[in-house]
Amino acid sequence: MKCRSCGKPAQVELPQHNRALCASCYLAWVAEYTGRTIKRFRMIAPGERVLVAVSGGKDSLSLWSLLAEMGYRADGLYIDLGIDHDGYSARSLKRAQALAGSLGRELLVVSLEEETGLTIPRLRGKGARTICSTCGLVKRYYMNLAAYRGGYSCLATGHNLDDEASSLFSNVLNWDERYLSRQSPVSPGRGEKLIRRVKPLVHLTEKEVAQYAFLRGIDWIMEECPQVEGSTFHQYKDALNRLELHSPGTKRRFYDGYLRTGRKHFPAEEPPLRECGVCGMPTTLDTCSFCRLMARG
Amino acid sequence: MKCRSCGKPAQVELPQHNRALCASCYLAWVAEYTGRTIKRFRMIAPGERVLVAVSGGKDSLSLWSLLAEMGYRADGLYIDLGIDHDGYSARSLKRAQALAGSLGRELLVVSLEEETGLTIPRLRGKGARTICSTCGLVKRYYMNLAAYRGGYSCLATGHNLDDEASSLFSNVLNWDERYLSRQSPVSPGRGEKLIRRVKPLVHLTEKEVAQYAFLRGIDWIMEECPQVEGSTFHQYKDALNRLELHSPGTKRRFYDGYLRTGRKHFPAEEPPLRECGVCGMPTTLDTCSFCRLMARG
Repeated sequence: MKCRSCGKPAQVELPQHNRALCASCYLAWVAEYTGRTIKRFRMIAPGERVLVAVSGGKDSLSLWSLLAEMGYRADGLYIDLGIDHDGYSARSLKRAQALAGSLGRELLVVSLEEETGLTIPRLRGKGARTICSTCGLVKRYYMNLAAYRGGYSCLATGHNLDDEASSLFSNVLNWDERYLSRQSPVSPGRGEKLIRRVKPLVHLTEKEVAQYAFLRGIDWIMEECPQVEGSTFHQYKDALNRLELHSPGTKRRFYDGYLRTGRKHFPAEEPPLRECGVCGMPTTLDTCSFCRLMARG
Repeated sequence: MKCRSCGKPAQVELPQHNRALCASCYLAWVAEYTGRTIKRFRMIAPGERVLVAVSGGKDSLSLWSLLAEMGYRADGLYIDLGIDHDGYSARSLKRAQALAGSLGRELLVVSLEEETGLTIPRLRGKGARTICSTCGLVKRYYMNLAAYRGGYSCLATGHNLDDEASSLFSNVLNWDERYLSRQSPVSPGRGEKLIRRVKPLVHLTEKEVAQYAFLRGIDWIMEECPQVEGSTFHQYKDALNRLELHSPGTKRRFYDGYLRTGRKHFPAEEPPLRECGVCGMPTTLDTCSFCRLMARG
């Protein structure tokens, strides 16, 4: 097969887009395609300082690389969660540091243990949340805090189309009205302490991102987080992958259809924000979820 | 494993309901369970005459058998679609006639060819619809017409939980607002010519219905309609079956969650009905879809 752009031998097939491309045209296409997503959802203003949350995995490292390549002033944030199984957190940090070096951009590092004396493994079983839910809460808290402290007005995460479509699938299977009202590629900032969050990779499948990372020579951490419990999300991803194989474009149609048509049927509530009595960061309650978790930790 | 009701050896496992039953307790359970669905959605009034649309397949024959067993005044309707591949329509009719005989109930037969001079195979390619969509239109038209002419106030079809959940899954994947506003176990009648349609098997999985048919000794036509095109619905059923295996109860949770929570977000339009200028049956247009199809046939 030949590259649809330049006619050289193709290396990457894109059934969803009905084309095949060579390595260099593929890298250019990913950047152009992501640029269109950023513009369409007004994610990042020209010249704006962006903080990219990087885990050491392919999605977040690819996002950082892409934003730098596209000329954005994008720094990285690594949150050390203290997962010491086979040195998971330390090895993840190394991947982030390596990319920071090759991009010539700054990497902020926040250590959960230094900040709170706790680690994700030690938070297992505290409160009613699963460990993945606890970890998500901790990461969102420190992402926002680090962006606020560092004077960034935009926080970018590496969620891809598979993440968003499977999360939407889960929300629909459970008819979760609250999540169905607010799943979005852009969570607007509110006040000066709640920073806008954006997901520039929402239109790229997991496979497309992995191909980008591979062809860009990014070294990422392959294994899944050793703390992950259960496989329900894998089941949802697996189901959508089968449908995608049978009918390319299914995930994108499902997700974009939700943004265009479905979401407006689930009106969002915007409860007023106040300052957490403990930490001073924005919350809808007297004490924010993070500080309540810490009180139990 | 032992029957949860009587302690004899169990023959049927019901992971969704976390129980196993012997053959006779299973048959009793299916009737009781279906009775609860009929009551919950106020499908059939006591003593009401019901017309059951039977195709010769396991779902519709089981429904007829169940309703008769529960004491409903249920007659059958067989629509002969003129599908002559290996005598498909004739062999399907024989199954319906055999059950009519054993139940001692009347079977009405409508022949598409006698009514219109056409058959489903001859309608292939007429207009923009797929053949399955054309066939659905023809069947809905004659079901309603036969019920109206026969003085039945209720029309029952054998749609099971797999049918409804996969159809809902398709409507959600495509965010089809119109279908999402009106998918229902009961379509209320309007005026005297639009007969109420009900689906008493919506809470039984396809497997549960097949087990009922088997244990009841019903002889049904096994092979799929030879006119069926494409396999998209099979893909949706397959995806839900995998999720159900991983987490029993997923289909029911998805479907019931829609009825309880999801559907209210998609308000139904009720365009005024008038009489079709050709046949006099209810339609929202000058000429009903069936008569427009016939004009092209």
